[in-house]
Amino acid sequence: MSVNEKAGDTVYIGVDIGGTNLRAALVDANGKVLDSRRVGVRIDLGAESVSEDLAAQCMSLARAARKNKLHVGAIGLGVAGKIDGAGTVLFSPNLPPLDGYPLGDELRERTKIPVFMENDANVFGLGEGFAGAAMGIDNWVGITLGTGTGGCVILGGNLWEGDGLGFCGELGHMIIEPEGPKCPCGSKGCLEAFASARALVTGAERLLTAIGAQSGPLYDLWRTRSLGAGSIYDCAKNGDPLSIALFEKLGWALGIAISNLFTVLGIRNAIIGGGVSAAWDLFIEPLESSLSQSISMLDPELAVVRRGTLGDNAALIGAARVAQIGISLS
Amino acid sequence: MSVNEKAGDTVYIGVDIGGTNLRAALVDANGKVLDSRRVGVRIDLGAESVSEDLAAQCMSLARAARKNKLHVGAIGLGVAGKIDGAGTVLFSPNLPPLDGYPLGDELRERTKIPVFMENDANVFGLGEGFAGAAMGIDNWVGITLGTGTGGCVILGGNLWEGDGLGFCGELGHMIIEPEGPKCPCGSKGCLEAFASARALVTGAERLLTAIGAQSGPLYDLWRTRSLGAGSIYDCAKNGDPLSIALFEKLGWALGIAISNLFTVLGIRNAIIGGGVSAAWDLFIEPLESSLSQSISMLDPELAVVRRGTLGDNAALIGAARVAQIGISLS
Repeated sequence: MSVNEKAGDTVYIGVDIGGTNLRAALVDANGKVLDSRRVGVRIDLGAESVSEDLAAQCMSLARAARKNKLHVGAIGLGVAGKIDGAGTVLFSPNLPPLDGYPLGDELRERTKIPVFMENDANVFGLGEGFAGAAMGIDNWVGITLGTGTGGCVILGGNLWEGDGLGFCGELGHMIIEPEGPKCPCGSKGCLEAFASARALVTGAERLLTAIGAQSGPLYDLWRTRSLGAGSIYDCAKNGDPLSIALFEKLGWALGIAISNLFTVLGIRNAIIGGGVSAAWDLFIEPLESSLSQSISMLDPELAVVRRGTLGDNAALIGAARVAQIGISLS
Repeated sequence: MSVNEKAGDTVYIGVDIGGTNLRAALVDANGKVLDSRRVGVRIDLGAESVSEDLAAQCMSLARAARKNKLHVGAIGLGVAGKIDGAGTVLFSPNLPPLDGYPLGDELRERTKIPVFMENDANVFGLGEGFAGAAMGIDNWVGITLGTGTGGCVILGGNLWEGDGLGFCGELGHMIIEPEGPKCPCGSKGCLEAFASARALVTGAERLLTAIGAQSGPLYDLWRTRSLGAGSIYDCAKNGDPLSIALFEKLGWALGIAISNLFTVLGIRNAIIGGGVSAAWDLFIEPLESSLSQSISMLDPELAVVRRGTLGDNAALIGAARVAQIGISLS
């Protein structure tokens, strides 16, 4: 750990719990990552096991902080899904065993440190807003392209939380095309059904079936059960037109979603993050073209759509920010 | 004028400038209409003529106020279209001669009373929020179904104005169906292209053409050039299936739009006003059904979609409220 903090300074633990990995970091009050940990999530062992692993990582970071005479003020957890105000995970699409589990309370009891929780996409927004691409921007929307599609709405520099209904800024579930592909949420044609890693895979399957494909790089991936956002990206980079079309559709849907958000909110900034945003060069042109065609209220030249700059750290820094400003109660 | 105000009390003039009528009212600090005027708009005589008529009505109301020893604090104007911060109408779809006309400045010079301006849909929101259906609701969206489709976003009890780009809450230009009917704004499938008086007429024409109609009540209206929101409403009330289908499509589109807004903003209240909202019983069921099918984040039972309660007065009371709180500068 490289520490330039003063002895006695308060630092925060930010945790990103995904479907595959649990990552935790010690973050200073300025959003700088001082130390971090990563362990695999053994979700098959159940919620109790995840909770134990989580507490162990946090305790390890707290010990590291103490060695450097730093004080851990609070822990912030970023979790995919719906979380209630008391810190219970109500619904977690990627970590089903956590549904209904009082993760916040458990962690607080095990660590004796205050715990705050937020939805993972909101955590992305807090991270990029505090120390990333959205620093200094008052009003913007954030979209995370991961397995699913997350979102957040930042108004007046703060995370907009709506009526406190347990969801907000769920940009992935705006309907883009009412008769479009089915979304895991149960609706049809949501942004997530076009613009997520899962949508790339199901889109590829649909496309291959529709054209009765018998050959080609995408077909080979399908046949060998190797279809994934990464392998589709590689195909597209190698010039495969079907794979390119999937990223174009992704950009098209994002352009309409962002157009609708700008039109409704009277704003002009959007930041895109998440693993699939690595395919930026494959979807940004279709996105901008679709945005220009869709938006009638704003001069498209004034629209600003950018990639997040913090990468994976957005979630850690944002979760630490949740701890720092004490969003939600657990 | 029936006045219960105390001598010396400050009152406000609210003005609603539509494509057909100019209405103005004296409104007290509690949103009560004390006196009102209505004159036809002679838009064919040009902007100067509208400006003169406007000033004359305001002066007449100011004289009435003085007689009752009331003081007019300011004038609030509600105008359809895009207005800049200096009170110039940038773009007015229903009153093209006003484009680029410094209506606010002119009125202030003629009346010597401070003038504030707002978009007509925002004025609806301020009216219903201050003295109508949305009293006491912090976060909600308003949709006005008129010739076109307007909208407003109220957050934390205040009109959300976004980045001050000259538009905000333009809910009518959210895209509902990317390959849907053309909207006057240039895009395709906007809410306005389904849910407005104009959309009912163009929808009827499209429908009659598509089925090659040669008879029926809607066809008769078309043939006699009598198609209008009101006449289509009458046909629907008399059981004409084509007319009923048009209102069902209107409700369907509103349901998707409201679902998207609730999902993005994490809220659950919407208020609908404007002339076409008089057809409430013809579109509320399709609206609720479409909303239920579209919204995956919120229990549809918690969604509240209601009609405005102020009717035509929403615009007058809202415009007076603009004057009272001094939104925008002219």
